[in-house]
This record gives sequence, C-alpha cells and structure tokens, in this order.
Amino acid sequence: MNRAHVWGAGGYAGAEVVRLLLQHPYVELGVIESRGLAGRLMADHFPHLRTFARRFDAAGSVLSAVTAGDVVFAAGSHGEASEIVPAALDAGARVIDLSADYRFDSVAAYGLPEWRRKEIAQSPLVANPGCYPTAATLALLPLGGIASPVAIAIDAKSGISGAGRKPAVDALFTEVCGEVRPYGLNGHRHQPEIERNLRAFGIDAGIVFTPHVVPLARGMLVDAYAFLAEDLSPDYVADAYHRAYGDSPFVRVLDGDRAPNLRAVIGTNDAELRVDVDRRMVRAICAIDNLGKGAAGQAVQNLNIMLGFPEESGLHARAIVA
Amino acid sequence: MNRAHVWGAGGYAGAEVVRLLLQHPYVELGVIESRGLAGRLMADHFPHLRTFARRFDAAGSVLSAVTAGDVVFAAGSHGEASEIVPAALDAGARVIDLSADYRFDSVAAYGLPEWRRKEIAQSPLVANPGCYPTAATLALLPLGGIASPVAIAIDAKSGISGAGRKPAVDALFTEVCGEVRPYGLNGHRHQPEIERNLRAFGIDAGIVFTPHVVPLARGMLVDAYAFLAEDLSPDYVADAYHRAYGDSPFVRVLDGDRAPNLRAVIGTNDAELRVDVDRRMVRAICAIDNLGKGAAGQAVQNLNIMLGFPEESGLHARAIVA
Amino acid sequence: MNRAHVWGAGGYAGAEVVRLLLQHPYVELGVIESRGLAGRLMADHFPHLRTFARRFDAAGSVLSAVTAGDVVFAAGSHGEASEIVPAALDAGARVIDLSADYRFDSVAAYGLPEWRRKEIAQSPLVANPGCYPTAATLALLPLGGIASPVAIAIDAKSGISGAGRKPAVDALFTEVCGEVRPYGLNGHRHQPEIERNLRAFGIDAGIVFTPHVVPLARGMLVDAYAFLAEDLSPDYVADAYHRAYGDSPFVRVLDGDRAPNLRAVIGTNDAELRVDVDRRMVRAICAIDNLGKGAAGQAVQNLNIMLGFPEESGLHARAIVA
Amino acid sequence: MNRAHVWGAGGYAGAEVVRLLLQHPYVELGVIESRGLAGRLMADHFPHLRTFARRFDAAGSVLSAVTAGDVVFAAGSHGEASEIVPAALDAGARVIDLSADYRFDSVAAYGLPEWRRKEIAQSPLVANPGCYPTAATLALLPLGGIASPVAIAIDAKSGISGAGRKPAVDALFTEVCGEVRPYGLNGHRHQPEIERNLRAFGIDAGIVFTPHVVPLARGMLVDAYAFLAEDLSPDYVADAYHRAYGDSPFVRVLDGDRAPNLRAVIGTNDAELRVDVDRRMVRAICAIDNLGKGAAGQAVQNLNIMLGFPEESGLHARAIVA
Repeated sequence: MNRAHVWGAGGYAGAEVVRLLLQHPYVELGVIESRGLAGRLMADHFPHLRTFARRFDAAGSVLSAVTAGDVVFAAGSHGEASEIVPAALDAGARVIDLSADYRFDSVAAYGLPEWRRKEIAQSPLVANPGCYPTAATLALLPLGGIASPVAIAIDAKSGISGAGRKPAVDALFTEVCGEVRPYGLNGHRHQPEIERNLRAFGIDAGIVFTPHVVPLARGMLVDAYAFLAEDLSPDYVADAYHRAYGDSPFVRVLDGDRAPNLRAVIGTNDAELRVDVDRRMVRAICAIDNLGKGAAGQAVQNLNIMLGFPEESGLHARAIVA
Repeated sequence: MNRAHVWGAGGYAGAEVVRLLLQHPYVELGVIESRGLAGRLMADHFPHLRTFARRFDAAGSVLSAVTAGDVVFAAGSHGEASEIVPAALDAGARVIDLSADYRFDSVAAYGLPEWRRKEIAQSPLVANPGCYPTAATLALLPLGGIASPVAIAIDAKSGISGAGRKPAVDALFTEVCGEVRPYGLNGHRHQPEIERNLRAFGIDAGIVFTPHVVPLARGMLVDAYAFLAEDLSPDYVADAYHRAYGDSPFVRVLDGDRAPNLRAVIGTNDAELRVDVDRRMVRAICAIDNLGKGAAGQAVQNLNIMLGFPEESGLHARAIVA
Repeated sequence: MNRAHVWGAGGYAGAEVVRLLLQHPYVELGVIESRGLAGRLMADHFPHLRTFARRFDAAGSVLSAVTAGDVVFAAGSHGEASEIVPAALDAGARVIDLSADYRFDSVAAYGLPEWRRKEIAQSPLVANPGCYPTAATLALLPLGGIASPVAIAIDAKSGISGAGRKPAVDALFTEVCGEVRPYGLNGHRHQPEIERNLRAFGIDAGIVFTPHVVPLARGMLVDAYAFLAEDLSPDYVADAYHRAYGDSPFVRVLDGDRAPNLRAVIGTNDAELRVDVDRRMVRAICAIDNLGKGAAGQAVQNLNIMLGFPEESGLHARAIVA
Repeated sequence: MNRAHVWGAGGYAGAEVVRLLLQHPYVELGVIESRGLAGRLMADHFPHLRTFARRFDAAGSVLSAVTAGDVVFAAGSHGEASEIVPAALDAGARVIDLSADYRFDSVAAYGLPEWRRKEIAQSPLVANPGCYPTAATLALLPLGGIASPVAIAIDAKSGISGAGRKPAVDALFTEVCGEVRPYGLNGHRHQPEIERNLRAFGIDAGIVFTPHVVPLARGMLVDAYAFLAEDLSPDYVADAYHRAYGDSPFVRVLDGDRAPNLRAVIGTNDAELRVDVDRRMVRAICAIDNLGKGAAGQAVQNLNIMLGFPEESGLHARAIVA
C-alpha cells in the first residue's frame, strides 16, 4: 500500500485531497501538513471531516517522513512549491503539484489525463492544471485537427472556493452573495495556460478569457465560443467530441436537450460537456467541480495513473442533491 | 397628475412597477389588477410593500377605470396582452406593455429609450424590451456604424425572478441553489429580438445566445463577444461607447479597473457597461437589474418620456448593499 | 439479496432513498415508481444521478412487482400512503412509510432507531419520523427520567427541500433567498408528533414550536430550550446525553467549543448534538440533514434494522465541503 | 444645515451611515474617514454607491474638521472609540458611537429610541445599541411591568455582515454558504447588554442567548421565548405590545397570520414584531435589518432625535424585493 502525504492540507484543495484519500482503496494517508493550522484538529476546521480524528502536522513533517515510493501532494499557495517539490523528488517520491509553479516547466508532466495520460504515467512530477484551464481545455481540445478557430471567447463562472481559504475582503460572504463579478479583465494568470494547452494540439487562435465569480462555494461552468474559418456540420463536430472522450471515465458528452449542470458534478471528479455548432460558431460548455476535476479529484486521478491503479480508484462518489 | 394602472400587478415585474409608482412624483397609482390575487392584501404577498395598505383589484378593474390621459402598464404573461392593450388604447390611454406580444409589431414603439427616445415620445403604445435584449442591445449597439462584426456570442447570466412568480419546479430554491444552469440551448425566445435590434443599427452578424440561470433573485450580467472583420483601436471603440451613452442618465460606461457589478444596479434603473478590445475581438459587458432596467424600471422610464416628465422621475433610488 | 422498491421516487425524499439504495451493499433496487414522472429518465430530473440510466416506472408498478421478502419505501405525499401500504404488507413485504400517515397508528413501529430499535426490528411496518420531530426528539429525549421540564421552546431552522418538489410560490428561489421565514405560528403538523414522542419517555411539558425556513436546500438545525423544575449540574446532564447515544453509530454528542454544524451532516445520516445547562435552563442543539437523518437516511437505517443488516450499511458516506 | 462626519466609514455600518446621510434632507455629509481605505474612491469598494464620487478621508480628518454643531458617527471597531469620542465632544460636537464601547457608560444615553427617546434628546453622546440587543430588547421590553418571566431563551439568526468587513475565515462565502452556525455557546458579548436592558424595565430573569449565522448578507430575526410565573391572556399581552409601539414610526406589531419577515425590513430602519402566548410561555419574534435598525438606521434615527428633526427624516426608503 502506497503512502500519500499532503503538503498544504489546510487549504480547500489540500483538504479535499485528504477527503478523497480517506476513501481510496490502494493508498494510505500519510502526513497532513499545514503551517497555519499545525496541531489543530482537522475536524474543527473542516466540519465535513468531523469523524476524522487527526491533527494537522507541523511544517517540515512531509520532508521528515517522505521516502521512496511515497506520493506527495503539494497543495500550497502559488510560488511555494519549490519548498517541497525538489526535496520530495530527491527522496524518491512521486509528486503532484496543485499550484501553478510547474505548469510551464518541462520537468513536469501536465496533469490533464484525458490528453496527457502517457506522460503522466511516466513522470515522477505532475503539474496539476488550474481549474479554469481544465474546463476550458476539455471544452476546446477536440477541435484540434478538425477545425481552425480564428478567435475564441472563454466565458467562465466559478464558485469562490477557487480563491482559497485565506481571508480576503473579496471572498467574504457579504461581497459574493447576490453578485456576478467579472474580474481579471486586464489579464488573468490562467489565460497563458489555456493558450499553451490549445496550441499544443494545433489551436492557435487569439483568446479572450473572462472569469466571473458567482454565488457558489463549489462548481465551475465554462462556455467556450470558437469562431471557425470553415463550415463544419454539427454532427461532424459532435462526433469528434464523442471520439475524444469515449474512453474517458470522467467526461460525459451530452446531447439533445441535456445541458451540463453543476449539480451533476459537485463532489465528483466528473466533467460534463456539450457542443453545438451554428454556422461558423462552435459553442462548447463544460461543467466541473473546481475542487474536484479542477483540483483535488484530478490530482487523485493523476496519482492513479502514476501508480498504475485503475483510473477511477477512490473517485466513485456520486454527487448529492444540492 | 396622471393616473397609472397596473394590469398583472401580482407578478414580479408588475409588483415592481407598483413599488416604483409609489415613489413617483408626478403619477398617481390607479388600479392594481391581479386575476390570481384579487381581493388579497398586496402587503401579504410582497413583504417589501408591507406598509402599502391596498388589496389587489379584480379582473376587469383596469378596463372599467381607464380613461383618456391615463397610463396602463400591461404586465401579464406573454400572449395575454391583447386582453387589455387594444381596449386601453381605445379608451385614450397610453400603454406600456411589458410582455413580448408587441415587440415585433410596428404599431408599438420599441421601448429602449437610449436608442428610441423619439419614437417612444410619440407613440401611444410602447413595447417594453425583454431583459436579455435590453442588456445585450445596450452592450452591442454602439458598434453599429463603426464595426462589422462577423459573429457574436452573447453569454448571459440571470437571476431567476425573470422566470416569474408562477410556481414551477425549475424555479424552486432547491433547484436553483448551488447551480449555474445554461438553458434554451436549442433556441430562446429572446434571440430574434436581439437580432432584430442589432440589425436595425447595421449589425448583421450571426448570433449565438446562451442564457444561464445563476443563484440570484435579481440581477443580470451579459458578456457579449463580437468578432470583427477589421482592426479597431481600443480607444476608438471606447469613445464610441462614451459618445453613445454620454447623455443617458441611466447608463454608465466604466473604464480602467472597473467592472460592471450587480450590486451597483440592483434596485435601480441603471446599467453598467464596459468594453474591451483585443485584436479583432470586442468584449462588451453589461449589468442591469432584470426587474429594473430589464423590466419595471425601464417601463417607468418610458412613461416619463411618453408624458414629457424628466426621464429620471421616480427612478432616483440608489442600490443597497447586497 | 433483498429487493427494495421506491413508491413516490420523484420527490426529494424518494429520490434520496434511490441514491442511497444504489450504494447499498445488501439491497437491490427494484421499482422506482412516480406517477408524475413515469417514463422519464430519472437522470434528467435529478442531475446528481446523471449516470443512473433508469426511467421512472408507472403508477401501479410497485403493486405489480412486490413479493414476500421485498421492502417498499412509501415516499408519497401525506395522505396517500393507504394507496400502497396495506397492499404491500398483504404481499408479504416490509414497508417503511416516509409520510405522516402511520406515525400515530399503533400498527406501525415508530422509526426512530435510537429510541425504538427493538420495535423496528420486529414490525413489518415502520412509520419514518418527520424531520422536525427527528431532530427535536433526539435533542430532548435524554432528559426523560432525569429532569422535569415545565416548558419547552423548540426553535427550528430548515432548508426548503423539506417542502417537497411540488411547485409552490413559497418555495421559489426568489421567495426563499435572503429570507428567514417563521411559519406555522398558529400550529404545525409536527408539533403533536414531537409532544407524543416526549411524553412516551416521561417528558410532559407544554411545547412551543417555531419552524423557520432559511435559505438552504438541505439541512436542519433545532435549538430546544427546556425550563426545568429542578437544578441539575451541566456534567450530570451531559453524561445523560453521552450515555443515551454512546452506542448509536449516527449520533455525535459534542463538547467544549464544538457546535453542531450543518456542513458536518449534509449528505449523511448523522446527527450532531450539544447540550448546555445554565441555571434551570437546558439548551440542546441538534443538526441533521432533513433529507438524511430527517427522511431517506433514517429510512435506510430502519431497513437495515428490519432486515438484520449492520445498521450503517449503505450509510457510510461523509459529507462534502459545501 | 448640520454637518455629519463618519469616522470608520470603510466598514459595513459606517458605509451604511454614509448611504443614509446622502439622502437625508437636513444634514450635510462631512468627512468620511477610513484609516484602511484613505484616498480610495468609496464607489470602488461599495458598488452600491457607484455614483458617489468622493474618496475616503485620511486618519485624523474628522478631528481636524469637527466643530461645534457637527455630528460625529463613530463607526470603528470595538475598543477604538476613545480615539475620537472625547475629542469630538470637546469640540462641541454631538456624537453617536456605533461600537460597544460606551453602552455601559453612564456618560452616554443608550440609543434605543423607542425606550430612551428623552435621554437621547438631551445627551451629547449616544451609545448606539448592538444589533442583537436591539432586536431582543424590542421583542421583550413590553413584558416589563405586566409579566414576571422566570427564564428567557433568545434564539437569534443573523446575516454575516454583522461580523464586519475585516477579512476572516469564518466570514468567507465558502464557510457561510449552506450553513446555519450557532456560535458563542459559552458566552457572547451581547448577552450582558441584553440583560441590562431588560433589568432596567423590571425583567430580571435568567437569559440563555444563542446567536446563529445564517446564509444572508443582511437581516436578523430573533425569537425570544419567555417563561412566565403567571397566566396571562394572549389579548392582554398583545395589547401591551401595541401600546408600547403605537407611537413608534419604525416598529410594526403584526397580528393574525402575519409573521415578521426579513424582506419586509431589509434596507429600512423598520422592525417587525409579533407576540404569541401559549399557557405560560410568551414567544416574541422581531425582524430587523442588522445594518438598518440594528446599526446605521438607528444611528440616523438617534441623530434626528438629538437635533430635533422629525424622527423619520432620511429614513423613508422601502425595502426592495430580495
């Protein structure tokens, strides 16, 4: 049984990795390190883990404990990963970094399994994608090779848990409630990540990306609008989407009257997709849980691939009614 | 002092017209007719009007009361306006219809004051625009004459009050809470209205329109993405927007770091706009209150224009915090 | 493997029974009958069951299918249970009725396992308690035998899913959002059920019960204030609570700084309790999921007891972060 | 025209005082001081004040500007009032302190106008009550002199804006959404304030006070349960409530089927009350806006009384639909 440590277990993504590991059949939970909450009962800060009796481990605990064969989830803030990743790799561990720090670094495989399964299986270090890039890339990559978008608009709606558990005025209930807030209008950290992902599969269009905070804790819905240089039939495009994800256990392509829906994915590692074509415009909609397929769920999926487990191990939970 | 009757006062839009008329300096509230709630205290069904002591009038009350010089707000369901509009016009009243019924009828002026002020002033019948078309049209019309969009994506996020006060499973709290729900993916009633509005000012592009319900009672944010045939400088486009709305008391064009924001418009007749240009893509964002500028507020603005009152009469209220 | 049918599977409680049975290790899901949704894919109406491929069965399906050894969950509206319960019992099935219809009928065991485990095990018919009575009774019964309350105030806060999936103006998002709504101030159906439960264990005080709807889909928190005739030490009372629930797998008695918390119980069959004593006043707080321990979870717990399965079978899921 | 300065204008209560002063007919807005936001446009931090063009003034500005005849609203954090209150009084200004600092100080009048109108009119310094004490005291004081409660339970539900605009994990959207959170179970700062208020009018019972955070930005509903030593008829008690508030422009006592309702009071200075009697138990329910009658609205009401203006000046706004 492999052991998995969580570095940065006191944030929303880190805590969600802990929750998933607790129900994983082939992995044992190791250290749960949190600088800020060291010594505190995890159950007191994350009530949904009330029956989990462990306290957060102190800074340095992962480094002390990690040995060859372990897995380390680095779930710290952006810019902090270098504190743990190189040392964990040196100790012979496999590492999955949930921050942005290694997403542009060729030393790491990019952890979007539906498009990078082989690299993930072979690399000791996986850079887990951002939540927005996960949804946007899943929505658009099937167009690679069959279409030539000239311009793409990506309109994203996200729950606020993506902003993390650090206190900030913008994330207060009073500021988010009753609001739809477009932000990053002059540029967002995730845009280059999306562009790089698309270019890697032949989609070289200019992108306009508009993230919005909506009054949700969890969940993300992305509408991607791609303006093509050519005419393509709806069936031809739909076939490409079904082909792209036919073997993916977590991605559902919906047809007919069905629309992607947050309640269908919250609490799971699933993604729901739908594509429509109207003249030269493709609209692809993708729904994920920003903490699931957009962070912790995908990280565990990557662990499964890295260690050769069935890809769905520990990730079978259904959503619950809102 | 003119008298204004509200036909369909038991719905969200009708009740909001009542609320606004109660604070109008030049108009006296006449009949408040509701077939379904006749005889019931309005305060018992609309707690924010707790201090308003009147009961809903029965079916037929507007018809009995209306005389020349009156104004009638027809706030019934779509398809019902013919029950009241012709008779009210025959009686010599001015009529503002909030339903979709006359929006494509040349007998009515289209009640989007920022673009149709003169027609509104001269017509006895005004068809009040839909909430989505109001936001989308305000966002895009300044491009008419200066740009040639080849395709437009309109991504709209709306509070659920736009669905009305009729009970329906889809509008239950349990179904809306925690959800972002794209709908009408195979076509929405408001799309032809938007297309017609744009074409009237020279914008003839194909449109993809995606409405979404978000967990809000009130408020609407529309992101419109227009893909142009030509290169335009951001300043040139921004100037066009400032010029278009410089004289409009209710439309604010924001610059710099400022984004349109629902909390800035809820409870008001205001619209907030922002436009950005990136290569050949224009993104125009518009925030309104779907019951304000998207329905009742705009209806009262139309009344002010029809009767020659200052356009802001009765519409001075600020938003309140969340 | 026993087979379990759900009659009234199109309501929130019935659908939650279906969700729980799908993960039950010892029970096979039989008929899922819904008069109103017959023939429709369950996944289209309950997006969290998107991967569940069955259609609702038509009226009469449970009656046609039921045989000796089956279990029938009757999850219809109050007043309808007689349509199915007697016939299912005649067929030799065990029956768990989630409506109010048999809660005062001596033919049924009252399905509050923590206090009626034996009767439940021996009865072919179990009347599943109401959500409010479940929380209030769990909160107060440990006082039976150790205290003599002279008066009790029960202040309950509930998510709106308890009102069911039938469309109603009062349950619309626009009416529930931003509101705390006390109701039933002149009497509520659940009050006699609570009083009967308390009296059965020697608590004979007058009760004032105030239910409130709060802006939640799921979850219920009940604060019960009991004014005693005698002085009791906090430790003595706390001991009684720990003793009462020490063997109950689903009830947690919290101490110290810990308060019952909805996020600790949503999606589970758990109840969280806390009791404080200040002079002659006892405050007992209980948090449950109104669709979990307050309805479907408790119904499955009853099934486990009736069939002799381990009480937690199929009920191991943890809550997820909101 | 008197001038009113706001010290601590960057918090929720201070900003709400600013909003109210902007619509006050007899008072001119002076300095708006905020240490943390000095120099920033208020409109950028409080979008509902988007059309208000002023920047926050720097620390020290109120002290520099204040002169005899001015009014100063001290809306800083608890413990900070001594930085401004004595100096402002020395300068000859009237002062209304919204913090807890002077609520137990005999130098200040206690600013609950319905019960302390005369003292308020005569004192240069008014200590504005806490939100919980305002609602609880309005709910219970009419019992003074007519009843002898032996014990009182006060169960309060509050929006999170009462926690202020300082960033804190507990006030994050993700932590408040989907939750009903009892807190302060081992004691809350507001309990002694409530007890003192009741004792002043002859109510000397032991109090158990349970505050809860519910998923709301604004609004507070308090249910107070008083257990009496004597039998009182419902009509006798109801009469006492109607008598107590018959002359109060902001307090409505509801009867029949009507329940206090947050949507009836949000955005206003109103309070809604209802009282029921069942055997020896009185239940009094009070709904207020925690930022209105619970803070800024009441502060402006106090200003009106101190300066001899009509009590409703600047406070006429109706609530809006949620």
